[in-house]
Amino acid sequence: MPISPLDRSRLLEALALAEGSIGLTDPNPRVGCVVGHEDGRVLGRGATQRAGEAHAEVMALRDAAAAGHDLRGATAWVTLEPCAHHGRTPPCCDALVAAGIARVVVALGDPFPQVAGAGIARLRAAGVAVEMADAEVAEAARELNIGFLSRVQRGRPWVRMKIAASLDGRTALANGASQWITGPEARADGHAWRRRAGCVLTGIGTVLDDDPRLDVRLVPTALQPMRAVLDSRLRTPPGARLIPAPGRCLVYTASDDEGAAQALRAAGAEVRRHADPHGRVDLPAVLADLAGQGVNELHVEAGAGLNGAMLAAGLVDELLVYAAPLLLGEGRGMAALGPFETLAQGLRWHYVDAQRIGPDLRLRLRTESAAAM
Amino acid sequence: MPISPLDRSRLLEALALAEGSIGLTDPNPRVGCVVGHEDGRVLGRGATQRAGEAHAEVMALRDAAAAGHDLRGATAWVTLEPCAHHGRTPPCCDALVAAGIARVVVALGDPFPQVAGAGIARLRAAGVAVEMADAEVAEAARELNIGFLSRVQRGRPWVRMKIAASLDGRTALANGASQWITGPEARADGHAWRRRAGCVLTGIGTVLDDDPRLDVRLVPTALQPMRAVLDSRLRTPPGARLIPAPGRCLVYTASDDEGAAQALRAAGAEVRRHADPHGRVDLPAVLADLAGQGVNELHVEAGAGLNGAMLAAGLVDELLVYAAPLLLGEGRGMAALGPFETLAQGLRWHYVDAQRIGPDLRLRLRTESAAAM
Repeated sequence: MPISPLDRSRLLEALALAEGSIGLTDPNPRVGCVVGHEDGRVLGRGATQRAGEAHAEVMALRDAAAAGHDLRGATAWVTLEPCAHHGRTPPCCDALVAAGIARVVVALGDPFPQVAGAGIARLRAAGVAVEMADAEVAEAARELNIGFLSRVQRGRPWVRMKIAASLDGRTALANGASQWITGPEARADGHAWRRRAGCVLTGIGTVLDDDPRLDVRLVPTALQPMRAVLDSRLRTPPGARLIPAPGRCLVYTASDDEGAAQALRAAGAEVRRHADPHGRVDLPAVLADLAGQGVNELHVEAGAGLNGAMLAAGLVDELLVYAAPLLLGEGRGMAALGPFETLAQGLRWHYVDAQRIGPDLRLRLRTESAAAM
Repeated sequence: MPISPLDRSRLLEALALAEGSIGLTDPNPRVGCVVGHEDGRVLGRGATQRAGEAHAEVMALRDAAAAGHDLRGATAWVTLEPCAHHGRTPPCCDALVAAGIARVVVALGDPFPQVAGAGIARLRAAGVAVEMADAEVAEAARELNIGFLSRVQRGRPWVRMKIAASLDGRTALANGASQWITGPEARADGHAWRRRAGCVLTGIGTVLDDDPRLDVRLVPTALQPMRAVLDSRLRTPPGARLIPAPGRCLVYTASDDEGAAQALRAAGAEVRRHADPHGRVDLPAVLADLAGQGVNELHVEAGAGLNGAMLAAGLVDELLVYAAPLLLGEGRGMAALGPFETLAQGLRWHYVDAQRIGPDLRLRLRTESAAAM
């Protein structure tokens, strides 16, 4: 049975609250909660805070309490199944029950296979009525936490590869010039996508060519994502600008050159070794390691070499392409792939969105398997 | 003063009638006409027929007469200023006056500098009230006949370059494989754009590599555009498939090899020599020659070499890019340009439209000057 129009409207409001906590809650999911009565009165609103601080449900209960509202018999609309376990904060289920909430409407179930449904079961055992949202609202809730779900369900972050290119697929001139192919609107939009991520990943080629900071500057944020460099031979200069930028900086390597590692550590970087049998950095191991450190969404901004390696290995879930209305002819490509013998060997994607951003066009694509996730 | 809602609605209907005559009227403009009363009664509708046959106004008058309507005191809504001269058909102005039309609403003035306004003047001299549409309707009327206007005002066709490419800007693999990068929906849409054109232009490289027909097959059409090949050294094989395809086939060359020319003529092609001082085909001369033959819109489907030459010469007004959601890596580029030293040397365009066509994305771009035309 579909949820009522009021339930739907409250869940959409809770989703908007959750969106407001992007850049704040990592590694926790972004969750929003509205409490109120079914006659239309809203009593409190909340969104998840920094990790270790209050979850959305508790924030909404506090908001209602601060206004002097009695929540006995009220409904809570929440974008993710309330937690039933003691983590860094007590279980939200217990807080809802203690406040006298009589009914909870949930947009999306908890994805942890071992605990899925435990929150709902705990609420029902306490006499609280629980309803689940329809597929469309659930999909919006899933989208908002696609990285958290990926980390929990697949053990790796949701990998989003950002590429700024000319219409003819050039990310730089042959001489390396790339600033700026896209306009200021697209660059600010790119920072908003960086902000969603727990980590911004690049390759050693980009560090040596462009010496980028890769932090979030063009939009406000509460947290800075980590930066990570894939650097097989530890060629990252200790003076690289991405090391002292705010937030942690990881250098993944296949090298056992302890002197180079020490120099980087002295500069403030963390050096982590994950070599594959060919002496290169082991990409799946890096993704697993980043997931282990709580990275939900991984934002890749790299050159054709690393882009091609990650794409060829099937490790990219989403492409975020800013296509400038510009023809450059000769220059650097988006991804080193091929040469293929047949078109069927090409990597096939699906467009999920196309939008004008200033003079440029932003294209989002997913793989078939990612789109079905 | 803006035109009335009724006038606007009738002009939009006339524009829709005119659109229905795409692929029929070349080299004449696409024109539509509605006749009726200001109380809302529509008495007749018409669109321009093949060259030498009736224009839109006469078709609408005939439609009304066939239904037995008296047009005295009626209004005619027409998408282009009615003609005032004896061409292959008598002046439409005179037909409107003779039918007793009391008022004419015109979407767009006649672009011929030497005769602009003559139709309107002739109508007013005969006592007919004439009103011009507002800028928005005029713009839609201009767009529909952008090629006709280009030919008349600039002495060259409106040049639209169609490119089907992967997301990373590849039009073929390194081994030349290109069938098919885009899906059947995009290919049919490409034929609909071919149909708008008076001529489809390609280069000798494409003829030798792909041996295309370049006629309109995937959508119905009354007329077939001409085909033209730019072939400096007359290497087009007399057995090339684009020569016997329906409609004229022109081979533009810089060569004076009369034997090769005779072989092509014997196969059915027309050989035309327009050499520049470097022994290549003179591109501006070809465009002027095509305009002289009544080509309004020129549809270019070529490889990187000819694309780059035309783009670098500033001869392209519009890009029609089908971007497949596909990454191919190494392969052939969209246009041979550069290498540039600075990004400012790149060719800057403006997006005018982005639309999903099946799994692909269709992007339309214009130059700044073309957008302002």
